Amino acid sequence: MSKLICFANNNFISLSEAALPMGDLGVQRGYGIFDFLRVSNNSPLYWDDHLERFFHSAKEMRLPVGLLKEDIKNIISQLLQKNKLLHSSIRILLSGGISPDGYQIVTPNLVIVQQPLIPPSDQINEKGYILASYPHQRQMPHVKTTDYLMAIWLQPWLKERGADDVLYQQNGIVSECPRSNFFIVTKENKIVTPGRNILQGITRKQVLRLAVANGMIVEERDISLEDIRLAKEAFIASSTKRIVPVMQVDDKVFAPCTKESVTTLLYDLLFHKEKETVAFLS
Amino acid sequence: MSKLICFANNNFISLSEAALPMGDLGVQRGYGIFDFLRVSNNSPLYWDDHLERFFHSAKEMRLPVGLLKEDIKNIISQLLQKNKLLHSSIRILLSGGISPDGYQIVTPNLVIVQQPLIPPSDQINEKGYILASYPHQRQMPHVKTTDYLMAIWLQPWLKERGADDVLYQQNGIVSECPRSNFFIVTKENKIVTPGRNILQGITRKQVLRLAVANGMIVEERDISLEDIRLAKEAFIASSTKRIVPVMQVDDKVFAPCTKESVTTLLYDLLFHKEKETVAFLS
Repeated sequence: MSKLICFANNNFISLSEAALPMGDLGVQRGYGIFDFLRVSNNSPLYWDDHLERFFHSAKEMRLPVGLLKEDIKNIISQLLQKNKLLHSSIRILLSGGISPDGYQIVTPNLVIVQQPLIPPSDQINEKGYILASYPHQRQMPHVKTTDYLMAIWLQPWLKERGADDVLYQQNGIVSECPRSNFFIVTKENKIVTPGRNILQGITRKQVLRLAVANGMIVEERDISLEDIRLAKEAFIASSTKRIVPVMQVDDKVFAPCTKESVTTLLYDLLFHKEKETVAFLS
Repeated sequence: MSKLICFANNNFISLSEAALPMGDLGVQRGYGIFDFLRVSNNSPLYWDDHLERFFHSAKEMRLPVGLLKEDIKNIISQLLQKNKLLHSSIRILLSGGISPDGYQIVTPNLVIVQQPLIPPSDQINEKGYILASYPHQRQMPHVKTTDYLMAIWLQPWLKERGADDVLYQQNGIVSECPRSNFFIVTKENKIVTPGRNILQGITRKQVLRLAVANGMIVEERDISLEDIRLAKEAFIASSTKRIVPVMQVDDKVFAPCTKESVTTLLYDLLFHKEKETVAFLS
């Protein structure tokens, strides 16, 4: 861990030495954005999508990046060479930076960190997750900010309920989990996922594309807690986990995920797409 | 600046060396609380109140402080001796700390920083502030978290409007400014300030006490934008500014603040109370 190299202050330095100064708006005012991608077999997965979202987040939050997309790709490539980790994650963090008055943005602080990551299994984890819904709407939901105040705060609450993660809802309309997008499969085998008040996940985009390409009907629309009660299957999708079946949301228990489930089919499609991508990049 | 001493990692170190590591939940997940107090003539003003609120914030956010109130007072006293700043601010920051999984709280990180601060003038600044209302409700409003995402983000928006600060409102009911509490004076000379969905400001508490002690009627209740239109005066209160008259909220323009204004009377009461406090502490 301590020998890992990261990119900070425009230099490649030891990760153990990387830090944000106390005057950084990221520290004092929680002002920052990031993106997070998985590296499989030394291939950064869907990095064009992640970098596009990163630059979008930065623009929305009025944080000049100071580098081009190609510069960041170049830095990531150098990190891959230096750290020689087969399976890893890349976190690209842009914090508000040092501010003389502690309030105005002057020059943001870019830090890129690579760390080892255990890749998800080739097979879906059929056991699945228990989700507990909680009334909350992320501020700036379309931006990947560093604001996980509610998510961290709810950890003991989730543990008490034996839940694996929280599903945010507002007035009975669900949006997302803190680190993944939420989907249901209706009795008519439609794939439905919220279309607004969410972060546009990169894996979410892959799932929707693969579903359409395989003849499934996809709907991006509001999902109510009642819709969940009527659904046949539910799952979440994220870069680190691909797809995880949802076995329960509050009191609603789903039938166990099997080889015949739509969720399993989507997992397999996603897994094969990823294999192809890695083969192409290698 | 660079010679200032702060308290970090359980030690007194140079402020320029103090930083939060990349793995800190304060950096990665915006998870942290703080408190901020003014030091006048080497006397930390209302530090019992500030420390009480700090420990309350920590408890609400499930962050063990690891020190007692008296320990923190002792550290602040040592900083005052080391830095020898006549007028300054003390920021007590408690971030989520290093988390092995980047999500669970293990050991929070306490940093106490003293920096020079220009004290407010002995006289009220009659010019006052222009406020622009914006629909937002802080998450965990009763806790002094480091979440100022919306406040920082709105800076260019405020500049465009020629406004000095934002007044948060939700469905026409106002709550607070990002760093100060909001008050109106009604035509009947009642002092009214929101009682819920706000941070309980230490200066707010002083203002209400002094108003009551001087025979004024005080109401803590919801304030609508319509109430503001009907009000005679408006002002904000904070530790760094004491009281600043509000000359405008959106389209509503108030009569200029004068020596006869209730706002000026409250400023003077607050100023004298502060002088007494400093004299008592010295």
